[in-house]
Amino acid sequence: MLKIELEKAIELITESIKEIERFEEIKLIDAGGRIIYEDIYAPMNNPPFDRSPLDGYALIAEDTKGASKENIKKLTVVDCIFAGGYSEKTLKRGQAARIMTGAKIPKGANCVIKQEKTDYGEDEVEIYQELNKYDNYCFKGEDIKKGDLLVKKDELINYVHQGVLASMGISKVKVKAKPRIVLIVTGDEVRAPGQTLKEGKIYDSNLHLIYSRLNEFGLPPVISQIIEDNGEKVGEKIQEIVDEVDLIITTGGVSVGEKDILHDAFKLIGAERIFWKVNLKPGTPVMYSLYKNKPIISLSGNPFAALINFELLVRPALSKISGNKNLQYKRASAIMKNEFNKPSMTRRFIRAYFNNGKVSFIQNSKEKLEILEVAAILHDIGIKESERKYSSSAAKYQGNGRTSCSI
Amino acid sequence: MLKIELEKAIELITESIKEIERFEEIKLIDAGGRIIYEDIYAPMNNPPFDRSPLDGYALIAEDTKGASKENIKKLTVVDCIFAGGYSEKTLKRGQAARIMTGAKIPKGANCVIKQEKTDYGEDEVEIYQELNKYDNYCFKGEDIKKGDLLVKKDELINYVHQGVLASMGISKVKVKAKPRIVLIVTGDEVRAPGQTLKEGKIYDSNLHLIYSRLNEFGLPPVISQIIEDNGEKVGEKIQEIVDEVDLIITTGGVSVGEKDILHDAFKLIGAERIFWKVNLKPGTPVMYSLYKNKPIISLSGNPFAALINFELLVRPALSKISGNKNLQYKRASAIMKNEFNKPSMTRRFIRAYFNNGKVSFIQNSKEKLEILEVAAILHDIGIKESERKYSSSAAKYQGNGRTSCSI
Repeated sequence: MLKIELEKAIELITESIKEIERFEEIKLIDAGGRIIYEDIYAPMNNPPFDRSPLDGYALIAEDTKGASKENIKKLTVVDCIFAGGYSEKTLKRGQAARIMTGAKIPKGANCVIKQEKTDYGEDEVEIYQELNKYDNYCFKGEDIKKGDLLVKKDELINYVHQGVLASMGISKVKVKAKPRIVLIVTGDEVRAPGQTLKEGKIYDSNLHLIYSRLNEFGLPPVISQIIEDNGEKVGEKIQEIVDEVDLIITTGGVSVGEKDILHDAFKLIGAERIFWKVNLKPGTPVMYSLYKNKPIISLSGNPFAALINFELLVRPALSKISGNKNLQYKRASAIMKNEFNKPSMTRRFIRAYFNNGKVSFIQNSKEKLEILEVAAILHDIGIKESERKYSSSAAKYQGNGRTSCSI
Repeated sequence: MLKIELEKAIELITESIKEIERFEEIKLIDAGGRIIYEDIYAPMNNPPFDRSPLDGYALIAEDTKGASKENIKKLTVVDCIFAGGYSEKTLKRGQAARIMTGAKIPKGANCVIKQEKTDYGEDEVEIYQELNKYDNYCFKGEDIKKGDLLVKKDELINYVHQGVLASMGISKVKVKAKPRIVLIVTGDEVRAPGQTLKEGKIYDSNLHLIYSRLNEFGLPPVISQIIEDNGEKVGEKIQEIVDEVDLIITTGGVSVGEKDILHDAFKLIGAERIFWKVNLKPGTPVMYSLYKNKPIISLSGNPFAALINFELLVRPALSKISGNKNLQYKRASAIMKNEFNKPSMTRRFIRAYFNNGKVSFIQNSKEKLEILEVAAILHDIGIKESERKYSSSAAKYQGNGRTSCSI
């Protein structure tokens, strides 16, 4: 089977994956980072009543006409209203009510005077300022009107949504169910950390790597397991779980050796292979299959290749299936800060730093540990058709040339 | 008490807060987003043995001298080694071992030939290529040498660290304990969403807003509670919990009205006020106190003011106390895309979009709902001393002027 191009592979994956339609109703306080399932409209006004924005006196603007320090007006204080309380009285001309920030403005009043413009009187208050109707007056529904669209379907909930929805009295929200993801790491040589390492064995990287990356995206696998290189066992496991899950990710067993057992596993259960091998390095033998309409993305066994496969092919799948557009990576053009020698014609992805529109490559082993910090930034240094004409066997990328990168 | 400048307020907070020294030992798989407590050095080599990078035959380079399609060399196949297995034999001249990707290279062999350069022979193999010593040969410790520094103290653990540490057989790591944060929302008018709303009452925003923001930072409060406007009750609550927590955040009750009960609360318990009122709008009356050496940051009661206070003053505190430098916001200079009228001289923070070095302000109420998406981006549009000379009462910021913003 011929290698396909990365863009085609992404298309084949995202075309065959359907966004999850299930929802769950959860507490608003737990809804951060989840995708809202349906439009939410304001069930009430906010503020729910006309209220005072400051500490002062509610009164009738007409009573303050011509008032100043030199021309003091006096009003009778008939009530005192704290935030959370209200007055049963209706103000008449010549009357005022002491009122605190956030309290409901009493009937009859049409403005609020700052306490600093009065003598803070308790039974009678001196007014030193002329006011207009609705000065210092917050109207009911001024912030949010009943019926306003608060959150759109498919939006990602953040803390501001949570604050706004709480202020509307909403304590539960419907969110999209998370995709149920399964992670199967294959390999006779792989041992879980903590176990004893016998000759020829190595410790797992891929399970921790991919599990943790999924966890960073808020989508930890519901099942994650290391299985030995045995096509039957892998096939049986997939048959056992397929009806209860939405996406299966495997690592290892996709190359062409005798122990590349995924081919057997999928033949045994009758999974349909959509593609095998993509024109990219590392991670060429990445495979995509469908089994009972469930997507199975099979990554290379080498940890760095698995990581590249994951970033390039699993992320678009996660974005589609979860409905969370933020999970897809962004592509950006950047200027190369240093040169990079590339003898092979194969499209290759390498690790690099991206900083303020510039990329720097990691070339020597001294910098290896720094890779830890930048692994998510991949550089596509594929060769364009036009360039192939001039360079049949090797390409040297010059600093300050433009390349594109995925973040 | 005079208002202090924001920079001074941040300094007073961060100077008085100590980074948490407690640690906990947790499973590596759960360590994402945590701060590592101590340097971790490689306890072993990776790979732990010399291994084959491909499917082929391990052999002695000298046996391939002059080999080609035209000048075939034949070797006896004495063993077959899969990944996870090993050979007990030592190769002699004229011998080869079938070997798969990732398998341990047998003693005596000093290179590996790709299977495509052979006839895939089982008992005897035809060699079509001349090889040099250590061709296709991965050395023990090539990726990571025993004793290498893997993760530095105070680093934030991500999925790549998790993959690398797993490959070293490490299944548990020591991480910094999370700060135990308490969130107290005060207000007689505040009801939790889900409750019935009586006249004059409003639903909570601040508890959901601040709790959710802390949760986004991976630091959900250990206690979060709405308490009525009663200085004694708030004081008692703080006394009750102070020994078991690291940071207390309150909202409301910090202004100058009769119901601004935090002043009473702190006088009652004898908390030391470090500052009250910062030269910023909204959220001027933000207060900072120490009680039994525990920091108490008291935010404004208005939700947007509380949010501004939180972003500007609590984030530096969280960054310091947790040891996670990523929690601090970044400041950036940007060009204003539209004009902004600012009649007051007070330093003010407003909501805006930041995109590719440009900021656009949100000015009309139609755009209010979009605020949901950008609330974390604040704009400092303070006036510099030099500008005051030319404009005594108002300042109009021109588009394309430079301003600074915090993301």
